[in-house]
Amino acid sequence: MRIAHIAPVATTIPPPKSGSVETMTSLLTEGLVAHGHDVTLFATGDSRTTARLEAIYPHGYWHDENMWPWELYEMLNLAAAVERARDFDIIHYEAAYYPMSLAFARLSPTPIAQTLHHAPSDAEVRLWSHYPEAPFVAISNEQARLLAGLNVVATVLHGIDTASFTFREKPDEYLLFLGRFTAGKGVLQAIELAKRVGMRLILAAADDDYYREKVAPHVDGRHVVYYGEADFDAKVKLYGGARALLYPLQAREPFGLVLAEAMACGTPVAALDCGAVREVVDDGITGVVFQNLEQMANELRRAFDLDRRRVRARAVERFGVERMVQGYIEVYGRLVEAHRG
Amino acid sequence: MRIAHIAPVATTIPPPKSGSVETMTSLLTEGLVAHGHDVTLFATGDSRTTARLEAIYPHGYWHDENMWPWELYEMLNLAAAVERARDFDIIHYEAAYYPMSLAFARLSPTPIAQTLHHAPSDAEVRLWSHYPEAPFVAISNEQARLLAGLNVVATVLHGIDTASFTFREKPDEYLLFLGRFTAGKGVLQAIELAKRVGMRLILAAADDDYYREKVAPHVDGRHVVYYGEADFDAKVKLYGGARALLYPLQAREPFGLVLAEAMACGTPVAALDCGAVREVVDDGITGVVFQNLEQMANELRRAFDLDRRRVRARAVERFGVERMVQGYIEVYGRLVEAHRG
Repeated sequence: MRIAHIAPVATTIPPPKSGSVETMTSLLTEGLVAHGHDVTLFATGDSRTTARLEAIYPHGYWHDENMWPWELYEMLNLAAAVERARDFDIIHYEAAYYPMSLAFARLSPTPIAQTLHHAPSDAEVRLWSHYPEAPFVAISNEQARLLAGLNVVATVLHGIDTASFTFREKPDEYLLFLGRFTAGKGVLQAIELAKRVGMRLILAAADDDYYREKVAPHVDGRHVVYYGEADFDAKVKLYGGARALLYPLQAREPFGLVLAEAMACGTPVAALDCGAVREVVDDGITGVVFQNLEQMANELRRAFDLDRRRVRARAVERFGVERMVQGYIEVYGRLVEAHRG
Repeated sequence: MRIAHIAPVATTIPPPKSGSVETMTSLLTEGLVAHGHDVTLFATGDSRTTARLEAIYPHGYWHDENMWPWELYEMLNLAAAVERARDFDIIHYEAAYYPMSLAFARLSPTPIAQTLHHAPSDAEVRLWSHYPEAPFVAISNEQARLLAGLNVVATVLHGIDTASFTFREKPDEYLLFLGRFTAGKGVLQAIELAKRVGMRLILAAADDDYYREKVAPHVDGRHVVYYGEADFDAKVKLYGGARALLYPLQAREPFGLVLAEAMACGTPVAALDCGAVREVVDDGITGVVFQNLEQMANELRRAFDLDRRRVRARAVERFGVERMVQGYIEVYGRLVEAHRG
């Protein structure tokens, strides 16, 4: 198939450090090329890919404050693909922020599939339902439920490059929180938990206002340690050394890439039952899903006792990138077929 | 001609209180209908117009915090017109924020003209120049200069409904600042000036963070009076009663609708030489254009001495809505002709 894959243009594909949408976009693009598809990636000029790269910007707007408002940069990157729609069998838009691709749904002679990367509000879904025919690919059944009323053509869980997440059998004696510092990710609950069980907690994420206001006062450099934002190699080391990844989620997140990544290093996760957690974690095998923080504090050891080899094996089985790539190829095929018919 | 006029969907057309883009959009739409054109206005459902109203939202996002992010609401309102492009000879997009219409420039079978309502940065113009063929209508020669390198097809100065701005021959003894509270509009300079000449200053604008932080400390209710945000009738009264409208501009604004409005009430303006001021004010007839604040303080009386009947007459002559409507009809005609050819 001739596939146009539209990345966000905030930073490079793959991203220099954090960036789950950029990481997933890169893995999917490379996987599609490996399957012999004719892939054009619309992304920033400093991206690295084996696909054909179409770039109208040399770099992303995270790196250039003159590139503002960013929305128009995203729009014109997407428009560049739609303008050449007849060169492609399918256009796939990674909606890092919102599905602006809907604006092109009825203007493009080629079908546009969109993958959403957040948990939409009711008002958002109401707006999007002006385009009930536009095909969405959900990243979890949790997200698919939120998209009720729209044309959700499939659920394809994210994949990760399991080979690059090194397995480690014997961890160190610390707990890990990795992800953005937001109320929804539950960093304050992770700190409370670590204090209650008397274990060292390492926090790894980019600092921001929320960190400075809410998190930093708890950081003492001994019991609660702030690592900073981890690049890929550092992330793998941090995962591998942790007794468990803490994921005391407070908001209905649609996926949770850090869960799969930690598991691929053999590190079990201790998570609250929220959002898509039960779709990613196999309770009692790759981690433990707790009902509340109280239970998590009392029974955290259950996560430590899980067999790290088995955690790794299950993660590889379920979150290998190949499954994700196959999932998208199947969806694309169906959409192209339906469009021809 | 069959004209699609795309309004912002922040609030009603015309606006309940402030909103220069919404006011100008309404005047142009009604003027085009009066000329017998077949006009479809894409705006919120609670708008009032003699054109055909196409509304996908019952109300605007200024009035509903669930309507977020607003960019997508704007985008889908515009898309609704482009999807029906063949029903129109010309599509005219009022770019209240930025010309997202560029994203549709090469997808629409009908030409899209865009009117920009701010002074763009160099980086913005650089981005937009990916579409060097897309026709812009400038609102002043000042703005046209900033748009260098783009396809500026005409300059059409804004018009106002001069009939509804009541002339007043004998003003009261106060100075007026009307407009948004921003550093660029020079509200602090207006306050300084009023203090120096020992006259009462009335401030009329919606309160915001800038007002609370920077302006409010100067408001004493006697020498510096805060009126609040004025609706149309209040605005006309405030203009008419003022000895002069102060316009000590600090940023290169592309127009200055309040200048034309004050002048239509017979009120001369005292302005700094900046942005499009010299294109709107006839120095020595409808106002005085000063080189700096010092000169403005020393020679403010020159503005008071202008003949208010002559101020009004010149404003009616230059800023009647008919001239603006004719200007756009001429531009539309040229674009439609070129598209056919």
